[in-house]
Amino acid sequence: MSTTAALAAPSADGRFEVMTIERRELRPDDVAIDIAYAGICHSDIHTVREEWGGASFPLVPGHEIAGVVSAVGPEVTRCAVGDRVGVGCMVGSCGECAQCRDGHENFCERKTVWTYGDEDVDGTMTQGGYAQQVVVGERFVLRVPDSIGLDAAAPLLCAGITVYTPLKRWGARAGAQVAVVGMGGLGHMAVKIAAAMGAEVTVLSQGLSKEVDGRRFGASDYRATSDPATFEDLRGRFDLVLSTVSADLDLAAHLSLVKPFGAFVSVGLPPDPQQLPFFALVDGDKVLAGSNIGGIALTQEMLDFCAEHGIAAEIETISADQVDEAYDRVVKSDVRYRFVIDTATIRTP
Amino acid sequence: MSTTAALAAPSADGRFEVMTIERRELRPDDVAIDIAYAGICHSDIHTVREEWGGASFPLVPGHEIAGVVSAVGPEVTRCAVGDRVGVGCMVGSCGECAQCRDGHENFCERKTVWTYGDEDVDGTMTQGGYAQQVVVGERFVLRVPDSIGLDAAAPLLCAGITVYTPLKRWGARAGAQVAVVGMGGLGHMAVKIAAAMGAEVTVLSQGLSKEVDGRRFGASDYRATSDPATFEDLRGRFDLVLSTVSADLDLAAHLSLVKPFGAFVSVGLPPDPQQLPFFALVDGDKVLAGSNIGGIALTQEMLDFCAEHGIAAEIETISADQVDEAYDRVVKSDVRYRFVIDTATIRTP
Repeated sequence: MSTTAALAAPSADGRFEVMTIERRELRPDDVAIDIAYAGICHSDIHTVREEWGGASFPLVPGHEIAGVVSAVGPEVTRCAVGDRVGVGCMVGSCGECAQCRDGHENFCERKTVWTYGDEDVDGTMTQGGYAQQVVVGERFVLRVPDSIGLDAAAPLLCAGITVYTPLKRWGARAGAQVAVVGMGGLGHMAVKIAAAMGAEVTVLSQGLSKEVDGRRFGASDYRATSDPATFEDLRGRFDLVLSTVSADLDLAAHLSLVKPFGAFVSVGLPPDPQQLPFFALVDGDKVLAGSNIGGIALTQEMLDFCAEHGIAAEIETISADQVDEAYDRVVKSDVRYRFVIDTATIRTP
Repeated sequence: MSTTAALAAPSADGRFEVMTIERRELRPDDVAIDIAYAGICHSDIHTVREEWGGASFPLVPGHEIAGVVSAVGPEVTRCAVGDRVGVGCMVGSCGECAQCRDGHENFCERKTVWTYGDEDVDGTMTQGGYAQQVVVGERFVLRVPDSIGLDAAAPLLCAGITVYTPLKRWGARAGAQVAVVGMGGLGHMAVKIAAAMGAEVTVLSQGLSKEVDGRRFGASDYRATSDPATFEDLRGRFDLVLSTVSADLDLAAHLSLVKPFGAFVSVGLPPDPQQLPFFALVDGDKVLAGSNIGGIALTQEMLDFCAEHGIAAEIETISADQVDEAYDRVVKSDVRYRFVIDTATIRTP
């Protein structure tokens, strides 16, 4: 057993505190990582604030983790001390079921072990990446390509794979027309990745305040969803509309933007059920789909793709004492485009 | 111009009457068909009763048409007098747009001309198959294989293609687990076709009254949706759930039956918007899709597939004076499984 300094939420409504937490002894296939940066994902906030149900406190969030290997167990073959690595949303799965065998550890038929706030196979609760160190089985450790800084790599482990998976599955490719709904942490990565895949990208945002950024990230068009003319002008335009927003949506209006046989895919989770008129799907054989991160092999593919295309997350780097304020700013969409915690600033008093 | 005896609805609330209607002179690419049988589709009823908006009266419904070619225009190359043929839901499209070129005349970017109650390119209103004769451009005339009776073939032109398209697109194949929701005119064809495609088929019906039929059509399991245990037992079982019902659905419950990456596809059109909790799609990267008939080439493929596998519709043949009663029975789901009008009984007084 080792210990590490971590930034923990003591309760759903308290401020973060630096604590000392335990990390397990290295198992034969474990990798110990000195964390350099941890991204702040909106789902961290939902979890800590118990907006998605009860949480176990103290809770150390963080599933966008980038760092350097500090030690490895004797059976580790794919990592060595000094390697630049990342860890995303999950740290365990059975490895044997049909989903795991197909590379979908995120849908393990027995149990996917999530990176924080989840019961691990040994009965302990997982604690995430807002910390100086973490221990993870090597199956869940990703290689960070040399050309991507560890700070800009961290958000790829969740935001990047979250949008890469549906863009790849649903046909973002040369010649395709892709719309990205929302220009936050997920949306800005979706614009970059879809453009790198060769698609022609349109951003659909509430307003036009981030248009300059959107075009810099690779969008060739940028429209305000608050303007009804947007839905008239773009009717039947897109092969794929990828929604990254977790607010109520006019599904019929958004589906009207999709070509026959095209798809509207959401990675956002509006809290309430949405109203779906079936004619909006049946007329044109359209698809409405969801997508939830991606498997480990696909995550590695995404990291390598980003390196090859020279893209990574746009970040604001903060210190440990700025996390409470950062949470409030994320809720207000006041971040361009992802906060990353410099974990060297997490120091026990 | 020629005339033919037809069964017309004089108004949204009147009884059918036999009338004499006109059919156009043969254009160079036209085919004249002596109709033998016309199926009754639930959408005929919605249209006549103006449940889908205003209709133009007198209205001759019918888009499940089977008969024999009686004459052809001089440029017709694919049909000859005496051929056994069918006509489905559409009789015209531009033939030049991207959708038409891809074989999706049903989504023509200019205008799909529907078989009845629609404005044709010459400004006349189309009149359907409850008649003794029809004239149709050869692009929209299908060959009925010799092994399928014209009576049992008629419903394939709408019910058959409606379910064939999504079964093929969404993976009904050997080894696949497919559920069919509803055991009416569409559902019974879906069971037969999915089983012929090699899938293992489960019927999900409100009750078990049609279980013997369902198993005879090829289902290996048959469950009542009125029993909550059905949703427990079958959780995560299916690659594809095909819904043929047009009533309100518990979408979260039905999506829970689908495996990760699987699809729930509706060909039914519930009148009201349905409640969709996005987590039911996002958890498991699931698909919710719609499907609306299919193109002409695919319709021919479906007819040939049915002939090859020895399947066709289960029908109750009726005469012209039984159509009003048949409509009421369709609304009560009291038909096994499709009414077909013997059009020889349509005689002017």
